[in-house]
Amino acid sequence: MFTLYSMQRSGNSYKARLALAQLGIPYRLIEIDILKGESHTPEFLAKNPNGQVPLLEVAPGRYLAESNAILWYIAGGSPLAPEDRIERAEALQWMFFEQHSLEPNLGAAYFWLTLVKGGRELQRHAFEDWMEEGYRALGVMEKHLALHDFFAADRYTIADIALYAYTHVAHLCDYDLSAFPAIGAWLKRVAAKPGHIAMDWHPAEALAE
Amino acid sequence: MFTLYSMQRSGNSYKARLALAQLGIPYRLIEIDILKGESHTPEFLAKNPNGQVPLLEVAPGRYLAESNAILWYIAGGSPLAPEDRIERAEALQWMFFEQHSLEPNLGAAYFWLTLVKGGRELQRHAFEDWMEEGYRALGVMEKHLALHDFFAADRYTIADIALYAYTHVAHLCDYDLSAFPAIGAWLKRVAAKPGHIAMDWHPAEALAE
Repeated sequence: MFTLYSMQRSGNSYKARLALAQLGIPYRLIEIDILKGESHTPEFLAKNPNGQVPLLEVAPGRYLAESNAILWYIAGGSPLAPEDRIERAEALQWMFFEQHSLEPNLGAAYFWLTLVKGGRELQRHAFEDWMEEGYRALGVMEKHLALHDFFAADRYTIADIALYAYTHVAHLCDYDLSAFPAIGAWLKRVAAKPGHIAMDWHPAEALAE
Repeated sequence: MFTLYSMQRSGNSYKARLALAQLGIPYRLIEIDILKGESHTPEFLAKNPNGQVPLLEVAPGRYLAESNAILWYIAGGSPLAPEDRIERAEALQWMFFEQHSLEPNLGAAYFWLTLVKGGRELQRHAFEDWMEEGYRALGVMEKHLALHDFFAADRYTIADIALYAYTHVAHLCDYDLSAFPAIGAWLKRVAAKPGHIAMDWHPAEALAE
């Protein structure tokens, strides 16, 4: 059985938990509180030298890092992972976009505004960039979603899961999505998919194991 | 035939040119000077709303963005792209790491120090972060390369191409790699691969078409 090292309020960890839930894959959950330094202990760094969650133990002692790589591993062979050559590349395009253009802005704003006490003051110098670059990334997504229901392969895939994670909490960290109606409609389409779980949903059954 | 929109001195563009060369795939090259705003013209934004190179036209009017997604598309079906489930996920792990932890630091330093006149002064406030975070990422790579010849699948793959692009010019933008002997040895192994081209190599034959 997989073991997932995850932080409940991390959007990157949520991606893995959402895909595992929708695919009905059982797993053991280990909560890592990055705010308490638990991702930088010698024990954790031995598992992931990059000191980040989520981290998936795919076989005893074999660990896979990076949320979007974990999505490909979890979803491989299911309809959530497009395997056609161009569809796969387009799903990857949006997932690299997510890690390079969206998460560093919306994810950083979410982390410092909602998770870290006093974070807004601490990051005052960076906040303007996160807003400007975040809105730019949202604009790219809006343009795509004005013409497509989902990001790749004409269906709900792990590219949607990757982009949903921080977009669906953007309103909690000062982003105003009212000017992005296609994104708003897409967020509702994603949340309506069978097996969807909210970010704060907790797999007590996995913990109880 | 593919058309690649590329900037000769962009590490992200170099990834695509290197893979195309090593796989012997002919293509048409269109040079885009991002310093002259050529990636933000209405014509270019119609092709890639994210305004970045490289960009690959895979079929008439169908454009693929994000260097690492382009690598998967180009190399799909070749030994450069591992398709085994865990090997693919591990290659992806390192490619997401590259876009999230390495490129935003080494790539930014390379851009502002070597391509933009007066860039060092303009980005004085950010430079310290790029160095600190860049060295941290290099440390993660060094740890892996101390035990492995390549990043994934026990062989040279597109994960190596992705990480090579900015690592091999790190010394041009103030990073001192002398404390990273395993990275140094890996850079030499990559450069010795059949069909390797330097970043400034120009496919005149593609242009001449």
